[in-house]
Amino acid sequence: MEKLRKIGFSKLTRLDNALEKLFSKIQVSLVEEINIKDALNRVLADDIISEMDIPPFDRSAMDGYAIKAEDSFGSSPKNPQKVKLIGTIEIGESSKLEINKGEAIRVSTGAPVPKSSDAVIKIEDTEIENNLINLYTSLVPGKNVSRKGEDIQKGTLVLSKGTDLKAEHIAILTSLGFNNAKVRIKPKISIFSSGDELIEPGDILKPGKIYNSNTPMISALVNLYGGLVLRGESIKDNKDAIKKRLLETEKDSDVIIFTGGTSVGTKDYLPEIINESGIILTHGIAMRPGSPILLGLLNNTLIFCLPGTPVAAYVSFLKIVGPAIRKILECSILDPRIEVNAIISKDVPVSGLGIMYYLRVKVEKEENNFIAKPIKLKGSGVISSLTSSDGIIEISPNQEGLKKGERVIVKLFPK
Amino acid sequence: MEKLRKIGFSKLTRLDNALEKLFSKIQVSLVEEINIKDALNRVLADDIISEMDIPPFDRSAMDGYAIKAEDSFGSSPKNPQKVKLIGTIEIGESSKLEINKGEAIRVSTGAPVPKSSDAVIKIEDTEIENNLINLYTSLVPGKNVSRKGEDIQKGTLVLSKGTDLKAEHIAILTSLGFNNAKVRIKPKISIFSSGDELIEPGDILKPGKIYNSNTPMISALVNLYGGLVLRGESIKDNKDAIKKRLLETEKDSDVIIFTGGTSVGTKDYLPEIINESGIILTHGIAMRPGSPILLGLLNNTLIFCLPGTPVAAYVSFLKIVGPAIRKILECSILDPRIEVNAIISKDVPVSGLGIMYYLRVKVEKEENNFIAKPIKLKGSGVISSLTSSDGIIEISPNQEGLKKGERVIVKLFPK
Repeated sequence: MEKLRKIGFSKLTRLDNALEKLFSKIQVSLVEEINIKDALNRVLADDIISEMDIPPFDRSAMDGYAIKAEDSFGSSPKNPQKVKLIGTIEIGESSKLEINKGEAIRVSTGAPVPKSSDAVIKIEDTEIENNLINLYTSLVPGKNVSRKGEDIQKGTLVLSKGTDLKAEHIAILTSLGFNNAKVRIKPKISIFSSGDELIEPGDILKPGKIYNSNTPMISALVNLYGGLVLRGESIKDNKDAIKKRLLETEKDSDVIIFTGGTSVGTKDYLPEIINESGIILTHGIAMRPGSPILLGLLNNTLIFCLPGTPVAAYVSFLKIVGPAIRKILECSILDPRIEVNAIISKDVPVSGLGIMYYLRVKVEKEENNFIAKPIKLKGSGVISSLTSSDGIIEISPNQEGLKKGERVIVKLFPK
Repeated sequence: MEKLRKIGFSKLTRLDNALEKLFSKIQVSLVEEINIKDALNRVLADDIISEMDIPPFDRSAMDGYAIKAEDSFGSSPKNPQKVKLIGTIEIGESSKLEINKGEAIRVSTGAPVPKSSDAVIKIEDTEIENNLINLYTSLVPGKNVSRKGEDIQKGTLVLSKGTDLKAEHIAILTSLGFNNAKVRIKPKISIFSSGDELIEPGDILKPGKIYNSNTPMISALVNLYGGLVLRGESIKDNKDAIKKRLLETEKDSDVIIFTGGTSVGTKDYLPEIINESGIILTHGIAMRPGSPILLGLLNNTLIFCLPGTPVAAYVSFLKIVGPAIRKILECSILDPRIEVNAIISKDVPVSGLGIMYYLRVKVEKEENNFIAKPIKLKGSGVISSLTSSDGIIEISPNQEGLKKGERVIVKLFPK
């Protein structure tokens, strides 16, 4: 008597436990030094301590005259005090010029202000006749002067390692004189989709076949999360072929991602192959979509086998693979998705208690509130549900769904 | 008698008026066809109408048996109905196999389901002895079958031109068989910083000098907004030198961005140069920071002269230059920043009524709410205020500031 009843996964692991086990195996990648021009979206590998003051000297914040503030006291358009122009300090100039009481120096925005001056009066608040300046307003000491070190003092921790370098970080690094930045080397990643039904975009569709959309989708996500895509291929559901590519590409890859072939179907060889060649860390995680995911290790290469349905592959990337890539890069924030606060538009009952549930929603702005609208869908194969939604609400295993009008956090899809 | 009183800008233009005038001069860039693998973050130039159904055939969503649902009616673990296994349809196979009442076909997830079947029973809900299958649950018609065209019907508008292509869009395009995508050509952009005080990162700092941080910062922003940086240089504040570089680079640039030299200081030559060689569209906009911005046109090249202080340059990029680049790319969303809903942590009085005010804030999550905390700062030169904040609240000209506890919209910095 042949008994073929399959029980699926005997036990689903909690996501946090699976991640903890996975992260304990992760080695941070090495450091490389790159030109600051190429630093956008790279991950800083060092704490940055300022070795200088910013601004590096007392600077004028306006076009006007450097004066002693007290000389302006009581000034108004009807009752101007007068000071004498004794010279000019140009932008970019190093000057020894100083003022005494009753004197002024012409400065432009960004020019050094002499030690003896404690305020700059805007040119539009003055009038000059010969070398005598009428002051039409009264200034408090410090007005329109940026003091040396006012923005950043020498010795300050300016940026922490693990920072994702954006335009503003590049600005601060270059303003401190850095021409290079030490960043983490991008992990090298191979991507495979397995399935006899897959054909490549550009080929002619035959009955029973579908286009392989997972490899390009996962490649795009890997790029967004800071990895380097070495290859993206589809493989037939053939044990020897899959095993051969796994063993070949393990040599040059820090991470290998498979989609498909990870469930309990007759042709799902991956669990068997990983078990023979490496270690299965976790197989089956209490999340939906994405539960059939397998996490493994082959020598030092991380192996992720994601479900083949595009939405499940996408969601399990966001929750597991992406954070693992960012752990390799030693990012201080492992999940970079932006969270927004919204109000759920209708009741969402969740049947599968005991499992983390990821609800796709569209977020719409109504006045100063955001409304999260669940996307109607029928399964994790529904690829259009990704382009018609903006993000995900996480419904935790001990929550019994959501009530209409409830405040929720939506994690937006990565951009 | 020399009268040197300067009045600053005689009149500040409203931002929306300035943008309207600017956008009326913008020509959309041409189209190029690229491989889908290179399409991440590019802007789609065509509407995409599906030329096929997705899924392209009736598919099984589970590993199990394709049956007639009615054969399972009344089934339970204690009272299983029985059906006869008559064959298997493999994934990727085109099969003519059909079932009659009382029959079943073995299918895996993704395999075609015969026309004559209207449900798939999961393998874990069955048991098989010889070729007789016990059904342990009752299925509604349609269960576990994804019907042809259920996700996307042939002829549907799937993506609109002007879409920023992200991982999920790449997935949908490839699933429709697209190997290439038509996208807008990136506008070519030259970036110059002018100022005699500027030295380049890597050089030794001398008294009165500061490092040029604007060129690398603006370059990073141009990359984020979809432009192609042709060059980033600093130029001395010398009228002939600036004019020469402007006229030379106008030939190969769709956009030229200057920072510095746009105010009313003695050495601010840019307004004069643009006026001589091209057209000034707007000079001075009612926004803070960023008011001295100049928008111009030289033949078909857009000229942006941004203030030299980093924060003002950054903010005026987000509000004006970035949206202009995205207008050239015909993006459907010109300002791509993500908006979040937050509660302001304290009163923010705004003195300069009649001007749009951009308040930098840090956003912190407290339970299910986001709190926006204004960053203490002293001027638009304070570069550390960008790295210590997350985004901007826009306080409109007719608003008298913000009251503690008020709900506000924060536009996050672009990532």
